[in-house]
Amino acid sequence: MKAEIIAVGTEILLGEIVNTDAKFLSEELAALGISTYYQTVVGDNKERLLDAFRSGFERSDIIITSGGLGPTDDDITKETGAEYFGKELVLDENSYNRIESYFKGRKMAKTNIKQAYVPVGGKVLDNDNGTAPGIIIEENGKMLIMLPGPPNELVPMFNNSVKPYLEGREKQVIISRTLRLTGIGESNAAEAVRDIMAKGTNPTVAPYAKEDGVLLRITAKGEGKEQCLKMIEPVADEIYGRLGGFIYGEDDTTLAGAVVELLKEKGLSLATAESLTGGMLASAIVDIAGVSKVFKEGFVAYTNESKMKTLGVSSRTIQYYGAVSAETAAEMAKGAAVKAGADVGISTTGIAGGGAVANPTVDDTSYDKPVGRVYIGIYCKGKTFTKELNIKGSRQKVRSRTVSSLLDFLRVTLKGL
Amino acid sequence: MKAEIIAVGTEILLGEIVNTDAKFLSEELAALGISTYYQTVVGDNKERLLDAFRSGFERSDIIITSGGLGPTDDDITKETGAEYFGKELVLDENSYNRIESYFKGRKMAKTNIKQAYVPVGGKVLDNDNGTAPGIIIEENGKMLIMLPGPPNELVPMFNNSVKPYLEGREKQVIISRTLRLTGIGESNAAEAVRDIMAKGTNPTVAPYAKEDGVLLRITAKGEGKEQCLKMIEPVADEIYGRLGGFIYGEDDTTLAGAVVELLKEKGLSLATAESLTGGMLASAIVDIAGVSKVFKEGFVAYTNESKMKTLGVSSRTIQYYGAVSAETAAEMAKGAAVKAGADVGISTTGIAGGGAVANPTVDDTSYDKPVGRVYIGIYCKGKTFTKELNIKGSRQKVRSRTVSSLLDFLRVTLKGL
Repeated sequence: MKAEIIAVGTEILLGEIVNTDAKFLSEELAALGISTYYQTVVGDNKERLLDAFRSGFERSDIIITSGGLGPTDDDITKETGAEYFGKELVLDENSYNRIESYFKGRKMAKTNIKQAYVPVGGKVLDNDNGTAPGIIIEENGKMLIMLPGPPNELVPMFNNSVKPYLEGREKQVIISRTLRLTGIGESNAAEAVRDIMAKGTNPTVAPYAKEDGVLLRITAKGEGKEQCLKMIEPVADEIYGRLGGFIYGEDDTTLAGAVVELLKEKGLSLATAESLTGGMLASAIVDIAGVSKVFKEGFVAYTNESKMKTLGVSSRTIQYYGAVSAETAAEMAKGAAVKAGADVGISTTGIAGGGAVANPTVDDTSYDKPVGRVYIGIYCKGKTFTKELNIKGSRQKVRSRTVSSLLDFLRVTLKGL
Repeated sequence: MKAEIIAVGTEILLGEIVNTDAKFLSEELAALGISTYYQTVVGDNKERLLDAFRSGFERSDIIITSGGLGPTDDDITKETGAEYFGKELVLDENSYNRIESYFKGRKMAKTNIKQAYVPVGGKVLDNDNGTAPGIIIEENGKMLIMLPGPPNELVPMFNNSVKPYLEGREKQVIISRTLRLTGIGESNAAEAVRDIMAKGTNPTVAPYAKEDGVLLRITAKGEGKEQCLKMIEPVADEIYGRLGGFIYGEDDTTLAGAVVELLKEKGLSLATAESLTGGMLASAIVDIAGVSKVFKEGFVAYTNESKMKTLGVSSRTIQYYGAVSAETAAEMAKGAAVKAGADVGISTTGIAGGGAVANPTVDDTSYDKPVGRVYIGIYCKGKTFTKELNIKGSRQKVRSRTVSSLLDFLRVTLKGL
């Protein structure tokens, strides 16, 4: 089966947003064995969208649209899709009730009723994260799947409703297993598996650089998931043999998730002390469901005052070594653990740039330190470990890279226990 | 003039990379007064690319391609473009020398010579960041601009060579002013300005729903930036008159940035106490450069124990009202302010779902509360304010929506002082 993806939205043609929906959908379709031959973006314009449907269905069996299902007048995807298939729009009771209940408490705008109208005979896809339902129209071997634009609505709707609907329509499926690495660069990871990458057309191995590390994706095409996984397994084993130390998880595992699992295994509780990351570290950990078993407490000690008062960092350490120093990081980590009564404490202090000096209130040596200089600390069972990082890039990048580096530092330290 | 953008690359159709080039190019073209009617992505396939050129030039004056100028055999954009215009490819001395010098020290792969061939009569655009030159073919009012795919090559090449080439071809430029709203839904915002949206073709007003609120973008087309801004001003004033209370800033201002500005104005310092948001709130605030003047300290009090021990929430309150209650939110906010010696304290407690009960350690009434039930609190100058939220959606959405709701709650409260 051939598919194409049509994003509807003038804001994309004005360059106001990136079309991430197309990436997600193409990736998912490939996994279902469905080839995407075209991605198109058209504005909120009925004639141009109709043209796109016509030329799209001349060359493809499936069209998936994203966007244009909103409540306003310039949201025209559903109306245009219905017109293309010559369908009337009728009120869908369930959608109406779902939308109304979505507004419980708040006032529902009249225009939202528009979203409860669906083409006759269309399959309605409930939206758990917004008002607009998705719709599938299938007729004479042509399938139009209309999804809402916001990724936080489109992604769950695809996974919950569209994927099951499309699954099994292709005998040949494409299955991937993604190994998640950290602490190694893309080129070095690729170098280490170059021969495997060169050899394989099925399965294939492809490296991707991500914010928090590198992915090695092993992809096999075969008849059914089982067969694909069998083809993938020996390749994965070979890569584990070479790079196992850098692999923290697979597929959707996050670095924070891997760390939380390790803490649970070891029966250890955690506390955080953050300066330049300002809560980003704790937030990444609290993002993991069921974290409450291991996460005790977090402190955002942005100022020297709070580093001393709340975490018990000695003023001498700050005066002598600076708030941005291995010594301060160590005392912050220990202070967090002690204060929270946790087994493990972890800390960040550094200079993110863009005005974010970790210790703005006391004039000290940190001002000599370069932007991107960061110290991370771990306190565990009476021992402290620290590391110096020098991160290039934006304020945002320095902070997020600090979080992933510390999570990996903790992961490796816990494995060593 | 009408333009369309064609990205060439199977990796985009496989969903391996996001098409950020299209966003950049569309944005730049809009600023030049050139409208983009379509963005298309095709694979590394000559026939499909030729089709895309044909249908593209039927409806547009300019086609800009990105990608497919590399040294390998599946890089076919230049060859296909030359074929479409019936041009021969000839060796371009300058490009050859530039590419050779690019490899100074390293060995130049033979295949790179391919990149030095350009269509007869084509304008060559030097590449300061890679080997592939860009090329412009212009004939009978049709313009094909072929650029390399990597953004770090495409962006400077566009700015240095393409922009000057296109500048002044359109007398009219397009300028936007974006009003950022929060505390109101897209549909209600649109309804409030429906008549303005209906009447305006220039300037136009368009609403966009974002994670943390709604944007109203006013876009004018005119001769020069000055004139556009003049056209936009009365429309913006009218919208301020109707929705001013919901508008927290314009263009790139974030909600956190607006709050930090207000705190500076009023000379107030801030502390945070977070349960379900787990540091996300503090992180959003610390993300603002220069925040150190107002942000004192943050606490991630995920457990009841830390709510009581660190923030001084009374055990009676937690036992009687529950950790997820307005009463607890109020005591958390006050506790944070007192503990940090800040003028203002803000707090979050609630049930994010996916296992994130805000108070996992003590069995209490919170377990009766539904997922998405959240209480936010503000302590300011001896007074406390709280609000109950009921947020539908994923764990991630409940948390981020809580952060934006609280930031807006604080913004409105501070304005009221």
